[in-house]
Amino acid sequence: MSVDPGDIVEVSTEDCFGGMVKTSRDLPSETVAFDRLNPVSGPIEIRGAEPGDLLAVHFASIVPARDYAISATFPHFGALTGSHETVTLQPPLDERVWIYDIDVDAWTATFSATRSDHRLVMPLDPMHGTVGVAPASDEVRLVVTPSTYGGNMDTPELRAGVTLYLPVNVPGAMLSLGDGHARQGEGELCGTGLECAMNSVIAVDVVKGAAPAWPRLQNDEYLMSTGSMRPLEDAFRISQRDLVNWTAELTGMDTLDAYQLVSQTVRTPAANVCDPNFTMMAKLPTWALHDASVYGGMHQHLKAVSAKYRN
Amino acid sequence: MSVDPGDIVEVSTEDCFGGMVKTSRDLPSETVAFDRLNPVSGPIEIRGAEPGDLLAVHFASIVPARDYAISATFPHFGALTGSHETVTLQPPLDERVWIYDIDVDAWTATFSATRSDHRLVMPLDPMHGTVGVAPASDEVRLVVTPSTYGGNMDTPELRAGVTLYLPVNVPGAMLSLGDGHARQGEGELCGTGLECAMNSVIAVDVVKGAAPAWPRLQNDEYLMSTGSMRPLEDAFRISQRDLVNWTAELTGMDTLDAYQLVSQTVRTPAANVCDPNFTMMAKLPTWALHDASVYGGMHQHLKAVSAKYRN
Amino acid sequence: MSVDPGDIVEVSTEDCFGGMVKTSRDLPSETVAFDRLNPVSGPIEIRGAEPGDLLAVHFASIVPARDYAISATFPHFGALTGSHETVTLQPPLDERVWIYDIDVDAWTATFSATRSDHRLVMPLDPMHGTVGVAPASDEVRLVVTPSTYGGNMDTPELRAGVTLYLPVNVPGAMLSLGDGHARQGEGELCGTGLECAMNSVIAVDVVKGAAPAWPRLQNDEYLMSTGSMRPLEDAFRISQRDLVNWTAELTGMDTLDAYQLVSQTVRTPAANVCDPNFTMMAKLPTWALHDASVYGGMHQHLKAVSAKYRN
Amino acid sequence: MSVDPGDIVEVSTEDCFGGMVKTSRDLPSETVAFDRLNPVSGPIEIRGAEPGDLLAVHFASIVPARDYAISATFPHFGALTGSHETVTLQPPLDERVWIYDIDVDAWTATFSATRSDHRLVMPLDPMHGTVGVAPASDEVRLVVTPSTYGGNMDTPELRAGVTLYLPVNVPGAMLSLGDGHARQGEGELCGTGLECAMNSVIAVDVVKGAAPAWPRLQNDEYLMSTGSMRPLEDAFRISQRDLVNWTAELTGMDTLDAYQLVSQTVRTPAANVCDPNFTMMAKLPTWALHDASVYGGMHQHLKAVSAKYRN
Repeated sequence: MSVDPGDIVEVSTEDCFGGMVKTSRDLPSETVAFDRLNPVSGPIEIRGAEPGDLLAVHFASIVPARDYAISATFPHFGALTGSHETVTLQPPLDERVWIYDIDVDAWTATFSATRSDHRLVMPLDPMHGTVGVAPASDEVRLVVTPSTYGGNMDTPELRAGVTLYLPVNVPGAMLSLGDGHARQGEGELCGTGLECAMNSVIAVDVVKGAAPAWPRLQNDEYLMSTGSMRPLEDAFRISQRDLVNWTAELTGMDTLDAYQLVSQTVRTPAANVCDPNFTMMAKLPTWALHDASVYGGMHQHLKAVSAKYRN
Repeated sequence: MSVDPGDIVEVSTEDCFGGMVKTSRDLPSETVAFDRLNPVSGPIEIRGAEPGDLLAVHFASIVPARDYAISATFPHFGALTGSHETVTLQPPLDERVWIYDIDVDAWTATFSATRSDHRLVMPLDPMHGTVGVAPASDEVRLVVTPSTYGGNMDTPELRAGVTLYLPVNVPGAMLSLGDGHARQGEGELCGTGLECAMNSVIAVDVVKGAAPAWPRLQNDEYLMSTGSMRPLEDAFRISQRDLVNWTAELTGMDTLDAYQLVSQTVRTPAANVCDPNFTMMAKLPTWALHDASVYGGMHQHLKAVSAKYRN
Repeated sequence: MSVDPGDIVEVSTEDCFGGMVKTSRDLPSETVAFDRLNPVSGPIEIRGAEPGDLLAVHFASIVPARDYAISATFPHFGALTGSHETVTLQPPLDERVWIYDIDVDAWTATFSATRSDHRLVMPLDPMHGTVGVAPASDEVRLVVTPSTYGGNMDTPELRAGVTLYLPVNVPGAMLSLGDGHARQGEGELCGTGLECAMNSVIAVDVVKGAAPAWPRLQNDEYLMSTGSMRPLEDAFRISQRDLVNWTAELTGMDTLDAYQLVSQTVRTPAANVCDPNFTMMAKLPTWALHDASVYGGMHQHLKAVSAKYRN
Repeated sequence: MSVDPGDIVEVSTEDCFGGMVKTSRDLPSETVAFDRLNPVSGPIEIRGAEPGDLLAVHFASIVPARDYAISATFPHFGALTGSHETVTLQPPLDERVWIYDIDVDAWTATFSATRSDHRLVMPLDPMHGTVGVAPASDEVRLVVTPSTYGGNMDTPELRAGVTLYLPVNVPGAMLSLGDGHARQGEGELCGTGLECAMNSVIAVDVVKGAAPAWPRLQNDEYLMSTGSMRPLEDAFRISQRDLVNWTAELTGMDTLDAYQLVSQTVRTPAANVCDPNFTMMAKLPTWALHDASVYGGMHQHLKAVSAKYRN
């Protein structure tokens, strides 16, 4: 698929299990090979995008495509278990599947406990866990590992209304996306959100020569830098340094003054603490920048042109 | 000082520099010895508190006591520099002091850049960086290291309106507090907030035999668990496991069901990523617990009895 | 290049700078692009090797090909500086180049300080920093990142006389090697060893269906497991768990008994603490296994058939 | 107990379980409270030692005092299990006790597997896991946490023939020691060595004004720096930076030249990867320093005066 900068694209994505987990008896570890998890839609070629450019992807709409979503504990995956990276000799936690009822009209997901009758109705907050471009240096990577090219960052900030900025590493950028979650807590504690197929609408554009070192996000209230690394403090440091540098650039302040300003105003939710790289967010309220113009008002522009697709 | 459970106490605290940094020429590293940073007010003995009890400390009011606050880069301290723990051969960042104007009537702090004329008026959001009790096992610790006994957790969540729950380790609990910040970003990036002397009002109470393993907080919207450890993912894990266990206890669900529920609803701001232990917060919205009663409604009780002191 | 199991192969490798740093004025950061560092010789196809097999590579001889070797501090690379992963706001350490005189006849390298007249003659201890096979799951990776497929592990244990065991992920295994060091301390502290082109002789063979999860090594005195991960304790844990499992398998003991035996006899040098993944070694003396037979005596066999090439 | 610099002292120490674990049915977690583990002998006051001085402790002899030693898995303690710091939701590994037969005449320890008839005779290599002085800044710490004052570093390098250098923080230094191991692998993988009561002979002396920042060791072949911190790379960095600075001081080279020299010659065994702080060793062969004199030949002096006590 090939599109032009400025185009609006409707994308359907499968859930992270490729749609193969449908009941609480379909254990993911028996149903899907680990390196086949997280199938993505794409790649989408953005014509004219060249290495060194910035790719802007605005999410106008993300809507669950099914009336259920799946969450699960996957053996040796998640923040509160030994993992493939933090290995121990202990057996894995039990593998268990939770089925959530999704009601798009009511905009709710319903949790049902598996070992008691506890139920909870939660608001939907749909997002894409995985959005990325082709890596630099001719590398080919499993999307499960988030890095400078985006990938499986698994942040709930990637909801409708946000614009994602990615570096272009290869001609055409080669955008792909997937791993929709009907909602997810910060940190993706158990390793999965409310995994769900999605129907999404995105608007894409290009800023020549403006590639960021790491993925950035913007919504109406915040500028956000990301860092994806292990250990978690290195992900934190990467996201914060990028935000400090971005602030210095937008305000004309020197680095230490920007460091000071960010220190007193930043918000720092985790994105994921379960993937092969952990992802941290650094969020600066736009009021702290006197509402400075960012990438020539790209976020506002893409929001406006895709307004009629907003869900 | 000795008080009874149920008492309301007015406490004045010095800033983290003992009040000795007053101008941008007073470099903290030359003005205060490292192990004399963070003086605290106390200890306050709570009569009848015994090891194994829970000490509840409700913050009714925290108000800056001066018309200025200080922030600074301190050599080899902070999240974006090599430190005493993460040592490198590089020279430290420049030591620099920022003076903020505090206007309690307008409820604002004004940032002024040191190398340009950039200024920003920010809302006040006063908090205590350091609140703790005497450690267990006859240890004596510098308060700069946060741990199970509380201490220098440096979370902006410790603002007026919150109730802090601490384990009692010694008879009388021996509560101390200090390190007021007129505001602070999450993570305390540069190592300091808007350091300021404070006038605070707290209400204290005791729940027999209910000592939590790690400090917990509660406000009208969230239950919060904390973890203070290095590396950052271990602080994250501690806070999240405590929240999972707390959720299981309050809902009667089994551990994996609670793990699932927390995974989809939790918020995870950093408290500090600069102290000898890093601190992470795990925040669960009370709606996710059907507004379950916590410690017999202690938070609501202390909020009510101290209502007239609210600022 | 295509060889058969049992073949002996002579390989010439360039140094990690592609031979382009020749004097102390050739700063690596100006001479070589980061993603062109560490060129490797290969890939060598081993006919008949299939996914799931074990590839054994015995190093009969590794001899410096030049009369000098290069070491350098590279900006933001090395264990005692902020890096591309552990980012700070501090400027990098000075970039500096050291030229060592290599005397193959005397089997020495001579260090000369750059800012004083301190000199030291050291014994040569040649090794390959980078030896690996094609990754699994169709990934393509820069060799600078060590992982399950081998790659830039940078361990001084990879000297002549050792047999390296690698998992085969693709038909033919596709072996490549390079990054010779005339010697290197454990941990590769400053980010480089005595970087040198090498003439090496290897003997390769295949054990059907015996792919290890992580690279393993064997010499006459030790069995060695490796782990490449961040943070360093995770690299440690991976290497130790592999050694525990290997010990259990070779002795018939249960896992906890093997854990106990390894705990009291293992040696644990770092390989590198500077690359995008850190590498730790877990070394078990063969006497602790009553000299159990490993992979059918593969190490002894390859050592014998290549004996005449030993340097 | 109070001694003079230059004195030789005979010390008996209990094992880390206070002698209360005697059979494989005495589970440590049921027999000893966690904060009563690791009892130490002392404190020994060294008359005339003042803050800022260096305390030298030469170990002339360390001999097992019993004909058995104990090792065990302790719940949530050890490198290959979730722990009190790296928490997970998984149940602990089985708690199991191993009894080793100690034969001082043959200088052997005999391992017997608990679930098979595998046996292994190992050479003794007695060491003290815990040697430390009173902390600075009026802190009081459980000895189980190693830090700048020494404490529970758990390195097999602390065997007879080594001299340990510690900073003096309080008048008299207040030396204590214990936690003898009849032998231990590097890293103390399962959390315990061959725990054994010991009869030891030490020689103590003081160098005025020469306090090192972190504990250092010296034997006939190596100078050693230590670092105790989490995560493991920070322990590594601390030990390496101290060794670089020490090398610069002893050779007169600048820091980067010393960094280079250490990089190519250092050895880096883990001490422990299980305690509340992890400990790494940085070992420089004395030949790399042209056998420079260290602390006025203190190691050679103490070795000579205590020669008749050598075991």
